[in-house]
This record gives sequence, structure tokens and C-alpha cells, in this order.
Amino acid sequence: MSDTNGSADHNASEFQFAKSRRVYIEGGAPGSRVPFREVDLNVTRSMNGAIEMNAPVRIYDTSGPWGDPDIRCDVHDGLEPRRRQWIVARGDIEEYEGRTVLPRDDGYLTEGALEFAQSRMKGKHEPFPGKRRSPLRAKAGSAVTQIAYAKRGVVTPEMEFIAIRENMGRQAALQRDNEDRSALSFQHSGESFGAAIPRHVTPEFVRDEVARGRAIIPANVNHPESEPMIIGRNFLVKINANIGNSAVASSIEEEVEKMRWAIKWGSDTVMDLSTGKNIHETREWILRNSPVPIGTVPIYQALEKCGGKAEELTWEIYRDTLLEQAEQGVDYFTIHAGVLLRYIPLTARRTTGIVSRGGSIMAKWCLAHHTESFLYTRFREICEIMRAYDVSFSLGDGLRPGSIADANDEAQFAELDTLGELTKIAWDMDCQVMIEGPGHVPMHLIKENVDRQLAVCGEAPFYTLGPLVTDVAPGYDHITSAIGAAMIGWYGTAMLCYVTPKEHLGLPDRQDVKDGVIAYKIAAHAADLAKGHPGAQLQDNALSKARFEFRWEDQFNLALDPELAREFHDETLPQEGAKVAHFCSMCGPHFCSMKITQEVRDYAAKKEIEEQAALDAGMREKAAEFKQAGAEIYAKA
Amino acid sequence: MSDTNGSADHNASEFQFAKSRRVYIEGGAPGSRVPFREVDLNVTRSMNGAIEMNAPVRIYDTSGPWGDPDIRCDVHDGLEPRRRQWIVARGDIEEYEGRTVLPRDDGYLTEGALEFAQSRMKGKHEPFPGKRRSPLRAKAGSAVTQIAYAKRGVVTPEMEFIAIRENMGRQAALQRDNEDRSALSFQHSGESFGAAIPRHVTPEFVRDEVARGRAIIPANVNHPESEPMIIGRNFLVKINANIGNSAVASSIEEEVEKMRWAIKWGSDTVMDLSTGKNIHETREWILRNSPVPIGTVPIYQALEKCGGKAEELTWEIYRDTLLEQAEQGVDYFTIHAGVLLRYIPLTARRTTGIVSRGGSIMAKWCLAHHTESFLYTRFREICEIMRAYDVSFSLGDGLRPGSIADANDEAQFAELDTLGELTKIAWDMDCQVMIEGPGHVPMHLIKENVDRQLAVCGEAPFYTLGPLVTDVAPGYDHITSAIGAAMIGWYGTAMLCYVTPKEHLGLPDRQDVKDGVIAYKIAAHAADLAKGHPGAQLQDNALSKARFEFRWEDQFNLALDPELAREFHDETLPQEGAKVAHFCSMCGPHFCSMKITQEVRDYAAKKEIEEQAALDAGMREKAAEFKQAGAEIYAKA
Repeated sequence: MSDTNGSADHNASEFQFAKSRRVYIEGGAPGSRVPFREVDLNVTRSMNGAIEMNAPVRIYDTSGPWGDPDIRCDVHDGLEPRRRQWIVARGDIEEYEGRTVLPRDDGYLTEGALEFAQSRMKGKHEPFPGKRRSPLRAKAGSAVTQIAYAKRGVVTPEMEFIAIRENMGRQAALQRDNEDRSALSFQHSGESFGAAIPRHVTPEFVRDEVARGRAIIPANVNHPESEPMIIGRNFLVKINANIGNSAVASSIEEEVEKMRWAIKWGSDTVMDLSTGKNIHETREWILRNSPVPIGTVPIYQALEKCGGKAEELTWEIYRDTLLEQAEQGVDYFTIHAGVLLRYIPLTARRTTGIVSRGGSIMAKWCLAHHTESFLYTRFREICEIMRAYDVSFSLGDGLRPGSIADANDEAQFAELDTLGELTKIAWDMDCQVMIEGPGHVPMHLIKENVDRQLAVCGEAPFYTLGPLVTDVAPGYDHITSAIGAAMIGWYGTAMLCYVTPKEHLGLPDRQDVKDGVIAYKIAAHAADLAKGHPGAQLQDNALSKARFEFRWEDQFNLALDPELAREFHDETLPQEGAKVAHFCSMCGPHFCSMKITQEVRDYAAKKEIEEQAALDAGMREKAAEFKQAGAEIYAKA
Repeated sequence: MSDTNGSADHNASEFQFAKSRRVYIEGGAPGSRVPFREVDLNVTRSMNGAIEMNAPVRIYDTSGPWGDPDIRCDVHDGLEPRRRQWIVARGDIEEYEGRTVLPRDDGYLTEGALEFAQSRMKGKHEPFPGKRRSPLRAKAGSAVTQIAYAKRGVVTPEMEFIAIRENMGRQAALQRDNEDRSALSFQHSGESFGAAIPRHVTPEFVRDEVARGRAIIPANVNHPESEPMIIGRNFLVKINANIGNSAVASSIEEEVEKMRWAIKWGSDTVMDLSTGKNIHETREWILRNSPVPIGTVPIYQALEKCGGKAEELTWEIYRDTLLEQAEQGVDYFTIHAGVLLRYIPLTARRTTGIVSRGGSIMAKWCLAHHTESFLYTRFREICEIMRAYDVSFSLGDGLRPGSIADANDEAQFAELDTLGELTKIAWDMDCQVMIEGPGHVPMHLIKENVDRQLAVCGEAPFYTLGPLVTDVAPGYDHITSAIGAAMIGWYGTAMLCYVTPKEHLGLPDRQDVKDGVIAYKIAAHAADLAKGHPGAQLQDNALSKARFEFRWEDQFNLALDPELAREFHDETLPQEGAKVAHFCSMCGPHFCSMKITQEVRDYAAKKEIEEQAALDAGMREKAAEFKQAGAEIYAKA
């Protein structure tokens, strides 16, 4: 890795945004430091020369140590395991030797294949060189999950961290005392469709939501590099970015870089969906360098261990894969346990059958063996593994619709019912659960997905892929799906799985990952706004105020993508002077609508003074006349 | 023009899409030929060797003669005035000399300025060289508007043309007789929020909708090059692309090219928002070459005639500008007649004041003169001009919100009430009217905009800019606004004005125009799907079937952007063979979820045969057993 990508060795300057500072709020637990990015703003200079300060804007920051210029990180060492002390301090885990990593974990099934591959791909797929820790797991019989602690009334350091992290803009929201739209803290009330978003997030609130199963904290005890975050309807809407190599293309270093790139732009979790060779090693590199939770679909690796033959999958191979990945530190597993034999024929007359990879692997297995899948029959055994490491369930929607035509059909909702049953079993066994959702859904059928999921799965967090609201735009599915994602987020989905422009066509590259993440940051933020999430509108207000006042640099710096905003502006008006000019390229120097508004304000102020003067002179009628000036003139006309 | 852009002289091959043919349906009126693009598809080859034909898919085509390889077009000549014979045949118009074009029409206010400019910008701003026709106008006292004919019960050739055009996919929709999701004609029923979309569009239906004011046909008698189209809630949702030079950047040829480029990708109308020099000539080039209606904001040109000083605007200058543009053939005018003096102070405490250019020009004028604007006081005189040429009103929302904070405020809705009053006056005078809407609106406040507009403006078509659902993503406002556009289109907006990635930052270039148009085609189509527009789902179904069957070429060719879809696929799997391969880059050759579905189908078919056999043998219980096979096995487990 080092010889091909030197810039990945430390905090590359690419992680720094102009005028942004990393700030921390200290939590109560040892070493608890909650990171934020703060954007400093310029002062406002009024036309009359007055100067107004603009407070810095705080932004939720997913970039972890990579985004802190004061911390030196190196992808070869991995990140500092800051959370480990909390995990160990709980006294309910044990260190053990762990399973031996085998060549077949990386897809090398025949003797010598690994060595041959390494000789051909020098440097590109080298093993993670950092220190390997022995894995941790729960002491016999105990559950080391956040939901287990929560149910017992324990507020973990993770929960306190999350409360601080989620509270972000709420201080200003709390201070809000009127409906003054010009105030930076003004916010529309929102429509949350029955969510219970508090004005202030307390650690106790976090605990309660986790205990009720309405939120999860994906936090494997073997991923101490991660910074706690929460997925639930009563918190900020989160997004996930999928990365992962395939049999056809891409290398480990590309995938690690995609992960770092995805969190730079705001991805809250990352799923490693690798399907080809080097699955184990790719994951090791990613986990050791990731400050966000990592999810996987273990059946993909299990399938590789069977040479791609679904019918040869066994519970033993699958179980071994779960342990392998749990020991590495994967924070959540997609498990398609709801694909039941009797549901499979329901997909036969669909336009696009079964499009979920995991779903079709399990369908093939079920048909070959003519029995229910081990994911379903062994579900309680799976729960035992999940609770020993605190891996969260992401119950997969193996029968999700792959086209508009197939949306909301019998197969989809039958599986959802089963996921609801499994949710309750997982909760009984103190496991954290979220539920995956579609897919491809026309706008008018989106809400039904959320309503059913909430009802059937006891308000477990919903995690949806898009949905795409039309099938006709391959190449633009980040857009077709951002439409559906924004809406489903508004209706109550807790996390949105991104879709890149390459969906249906090819593997996403760096640009696609960024395009996907930004489109989903837009969708998630739009959902927060529509739900009336306290403080969500602060960034919009600050940016719009900057825009209105021609503080171009502040507008760029407050944007989701400061770099592109600046670049686009400079294409039309590259001169440095134009960034402080009181006009923009759309209207030109002659005429500016925003300048005119200043005159409107002056006029309104003058009118108020006249009214007040008239009132002071006891001339109530005269005052009313000033107030209605416009109307009267109209009446005369 | 010719020396800098040779490819613009004729039907460039860039207008042709692979496997697409131009087809026509003849209308009853002389020369009436309604264009469509038909995409030919490959056959489906089943795994058992059977061959199934796939019918061509018909696509609404806005590219006019430019998209017909059999017609030779030249931007220097302009398009054939095919609609002129219908206009003349009605016998209610007269040809007249028209006003003299003045240097100031192009922004040259001092003597010799035009000549000086021409000498410096050789070739770039040459006058339109094609034949100049004398303008047409209504004979004294008559209204030559589509609404006037409609009210009198006359079905015009334009209305019949539109009925054929809009019926596109409805034949298949009519044949739809069941809920079989695998049928290509299957479509979800949709939720249209009270729209009255017929299963089959008759010319009489078009007439009735126009007569009621629920739809408009923008069709200036001086723009006979245009192909009739309709804007109304009960028709396909339309999109508009804005182009236009400004004082800061861009030339005539760029603008003409942007128009041709916008209609290639599906823009239904184009607005020329030029604000700098050469406004008249730019418009002439655009109109003579445009098969889609052209809209403008005449106050922009009027302002240029006053050297940019809003307070110097007069009714005479404005009226002269309306006549100038009506004679050229502009099909609709944005007129901000609802900006009343008493509404202006309502914007003073906004976060972003007045952001509409037209709105702020009028606000400035009103404040300077302390009287209502001539757009309002002379509204009936304006109607006289509109009806003499059949220019449609697009009543502008001069007080639309420019930020999330300002959405749905008092100023915005006060103006809307006035637009409602003006709508009724325009209808009384036989003018066609649509109403412009916002802007920046969080998702939960979007529907109120449509509901109020429909109520206040008597169901006149709504025409909205986006809306953007958040302010935080400059550089991506085609996405922030496509989310709002899809939703507002679903709720009942008839036409969506695009927003490009450069919004708020700079002038759109060719790529931005395309990105904006495609994002809005997605939004409009998603709205059609959600409304349950008959036949709208055909393209989705055909594309998804192609995708499912690995007919890669068909998937590309059915995409909104076939070129990008192919390019993205080829980036990952460039080999020609990969386009017929039964796998894609996401899963690789080992494993393919869609292949597995074929096995599911075989399984389901086998099960059906077994059931049938059992039934034939009178073994009802045995048959039921097969049916419940999955469930029973589960029960045993």
C-alpha cells in the first residue's frame, strides 16, 4: 500500500476544509472526546458600515482521527483503539486466541493459490501490517450488547458520547423563543409522523431508545477504533456507503481509500460488500482504519469459501464466517433470515424476480435442499454469536423489489412479517436489530413501507436502499434514489443506504462514492428538516444568510461540498475579487436582486419609524394610514 | 455562427440515439405529423432456447425536426414554419409590418455602440440570417388564443396534435386487464390527489381542459416552428430549461446550442433569460430554431433598455418590449404582476428578502415611485397584447422564498392570492395562464403550496422552480431541487422548471444544462408514475425486463441517457462481450442473482405442474400439500 499511495499514510490535507476547525466536547468517561467540525464565518458588513459577528457553525463530523490535523494517523498502523478501555472496564469480556485465519478466508481454495496470487499482485494485497490484537468476546453466558446494558439501566460511555454528539445544534434550538424568520435559530416545526424527537438528547434518552429497540449502537467489542453513533428514528438520519471489491475489479488499497473518502464526505457507516478474493484482508485494513461502524453481508464470504456454489453452503461454513468477522470487529451483519421457502414462488411472476444477492443465494440454497435456510432455523444460534461480540443485526430484505413493477408486493411484505418475528427473538436474546428495506418504489407507495415496517417490527430502526422512484435512469440512480431516500427518511427511516451513479452498471469509483454520499447527505438532511429535527435548520439558515449577504467564502465553506461550490463559482467568475463582489454571474454587476432587498429593508424601517412617530404624536389614524399606504394607493389607482 | 460551430448547421449525429427511430402519427389537420421516438429492442432468449419478441418502446420526443435524420435543418435558415397554415386558416389574424428593431433592443443605448460591438465580436453575434417574416396578430377585437377557441367549442389542430402526442403509451394501458405484475403493461394505480387524468386523451378532452383554464397550450402565432404541447395537471408533467446570456458571460451561439441540447434531452419548453447585450438577436436565433415553446421575462429586456435602472422603467418601454417579443414569437411571458406595494415590507424580516430578479426589479420600482407597478395597474392592457398573439401568461412569483427559512410565509401567500385574482381577469379576457411557484421549501411544506395554488388560482397550471428541499448543497442543487420537484409534480404541479448544478454559483454550461434536464426528466417521470399516469410505467417495465434478462444494449437504449449508461458500463467492463454476458461487475461471473431467479421460476413452474397433476388425479389434498411444501417443511424443522 505504502508504495502506491503515499498520501494515505497520514492525515492528508485533503481531509481539511477551508476555515474549518476540529473541536471536541469532553464526555464523562475516560478518554471520551466527541468530535465536531466548526466552520468559522466572516463578519457581516452592512451597507451603513455596521459590523455584525457571525457565530461559527457546528457540523456533525464522521471523519474521526483522519479529520483532526493534530493527530498523526497511518493506514499501516490503524487508528488508536480509544474505545477499548470502556469495553474492558465493563468486566464482562474475555480475551481469547481466536480462530486461525485460513487462505480460504481470502478466497484461495487450493493449496498455493494465495502465494501465487501474492506473487502476481505485489504490494496491492499485502496483509495488514499493524499490530494484531487477540479478539474479545463475552464471558460465557453474558451479553455484551448495548441493548443488554440499556435494559439493565446502564448508561454506557457510548450512550453518553452519542448524546453529546447528537445534541449538536440543539442549544440554539432551545434558545429559540419566537417565530422571527430572520433569526438564525428560526426553524419550521416539521411533521415527524409520530417520531418522538426530544428537544434535548440526554444519555438517559439514548439508553431508553436502545432498550426499547427503537435505536441501535453498532459497536462490536473488537472494533474499538470506532466512534459511537446511533441509528434510530428519533435521532439524526444517518447514511451508509457501500464499498467492496468484486471478482471483476478493484484492489484493497482502493477500498480502504473509498472508506476514508466516504467518511470525509459524511458517511455514518460503511458496508464492505467484497465478493472476490482477499475478503478477509480487505476487511482487516478497513476495520483497523475506520472510525465509523462497518457492516458486511457474511453470506458473500461464505459463498466464496464454497467456490461460489450456493447449494454447497452449510451452517458450519456460515457460522465459522460469522465468528471470523465478529472477531475482526464487524459492527453489523446483514442476514437474510426472512427468505422462507414458501415465499420463493411468490417471486416467480415478478418483473425482476429476486435481485438481492443474499436473497437469491438463500433462495437457491432453499430450492436445492428443499428446506428452510439455516439462517432461519439456526436464528437463535446466530443470536448467541451476535450477543457475544455485540454485532448488530441488519435483517436483510432478500425479497426486496428490483423494479417499480415489483414494489410492495406479496413476497416483499411476507418476508417483512418474518423479519418482524425474528426481531422479537433477537430482542429477547439481547441483540440489537435494524431492518433493511427497498429498493425500487414509486413515490406514492413509499410511505406504506415505513408504516408497515414500524408496525410489524416494533419500531426497530429501518434501513433502506434508496428507494429508486423510477427505473428509467441508469447512470443517475443516485438521483432517482435520493428522491425516494429523502421521502422515506422523512417518513421515519433511520438510515439510508446510498446508491451511486454506477448502480446497475458497474463498480463505483472514487467520484461515484462521493456523488453517492453527497446525494444521500442531501436526502438525510432534507429528512431532518422535514421532521423538524431540532437545530437541523441552523446550517441552512447560516448558509442562506451568507448567500444573501454575498459572503461567498462563507457560502462555500458551509456547503456540503465546499470544494465543488468554490470550483463552480470560479469557472464563471475566476477573479479573486468576484468572491467579495456584491453581484453574481446570474445577474451581473448592473443589477442585483439582493441589493434591492436592502432598500426594501430600509423602506420598511423608515415606515416603522413614521408609524411610531405618528403614534407618539397620538395620531392613531395617521399611523394606520402609513401602514396601509400600499393598499390605499392601489385603491386610488 | 457557421465558422465556429459547423456541426450546428444540420441534424448532427449527436441527435441520434442507438436503435431509435423517428416515427410519426398523422393528425387530421393538413401537415399534422406527431413525432415520437421509438426504441427497438432485441429478442429475449430464454435459458431453454425459446425466443420472445420485445415490442419497441415509444418515447415522447421534444427534439422536433432536429431529431429526424430525414429532415435537413440549418440553424441559419431556422425550422420550417409548419404550424403557420393552421394559424392562417383560422382567418382571424392579419399580417402587418411590425415595429422596427432598434439597437437598444439589443442593449446598445448610445449611437455607434452596436457597430462597435459587432466589429469586436465578429461572427459571434451576427444577426439571424434567415428569412424574416412579417408578424401576425389578431384582427382588431379578436382573441387568437387557444382558450378563446376552446371556450367557443373549437377543437384546433393544435389540440388534436396534443391528444395524439399525450396518448403515447395509453394503448397498452387500455389493454391492461389484470394485476399480473410480470405483464409489461402492469402499472400501479397511483395517487393523483384529485387530478382527473383520463385513460384515453381525446381532442375534446384537451379542448375542455384548455377552456376550463386547467391547461395551457403556449403557441404564439408568430412561432409557427413550434410543435404543440400542453401544460396541465391532467397531462404528462413537463419540464422547462432556462438558458440565456448575461452581462458577464456567454454568446448567442452558446445559447442556441444550449436550446438544441436541452431539447435533445427532453426539455418541453425553454426560457431565454438573457440579461446582457444582444437580447433581441439571441432570441431571434433561438425562436427560429426551436420546436418547443419559448418563454421569457420581458422585464429583463425592458430593464436593459433603461440602462439597468429599475426606477426608470415605464409602462411605455415595457409595453414596447412586450410587442417586440410577441412579434418575434415568444410563447409565454413571466410577468410579476402580483408584487404589490403593501406586500413588499412583508419581506423585510426574511432571511433572504426578495430573490426573484423580476420581483426585486418591481419592488424597487414600486418603492421609488411609491405606487403600484404598471404590471398590476395595466394588467388588462397587457391582456390585450397577450390575446392578440396568443402569448400565455406565466404569472411570476416575485416574492418566492429564497431559503428554507422563508418558505410558505405571509409575503409568498399574499402574492399568490393576487395572482389568483389576476388569473380570473386573464381568463375573462381569453388569455391562457399558468402560475409560478417556489423556490426553497422543506419537504413537509411542499404540499401546502400546491393545495393553495389550486384553490386560489382556480386550478390554473402550476409551474414551479424546484423547489429545493435544503439550502446546504450549492453545486448539487439539481439534486436538492429534483427531490422537491418530484414531490410537487406528484402533488399536482404541471411543469417543473429545472435547476442546474451551477444554481447560486455561476452560469450553466452545456454539461450543467444536461444534468439539469435529466434530473428534471427523472422528477417529472417519477411524478407521472406516482400519479398513476396511464402508460407511464411502460418504459420502466421494459427497461427492468431488459435489465433482468441481461439485455444490456436494450437497458442502455431505454435509459433517459443512453450514452452515459453505456459509458459507465464500459468503464468497468469494456469488452464488447460483456454487454451480452449473463453477469455484471457487481456480482462477477461466479454468481448472479438474476440467474438464480430463473431457477426459481423453473421451480415454481414445476410445482404448478405437480399441483395440476395432483388435481388431475383428484388428489386435492396432495395438491394442497405441494402448495404448502415450504411451510410444512418449516413446521417439521
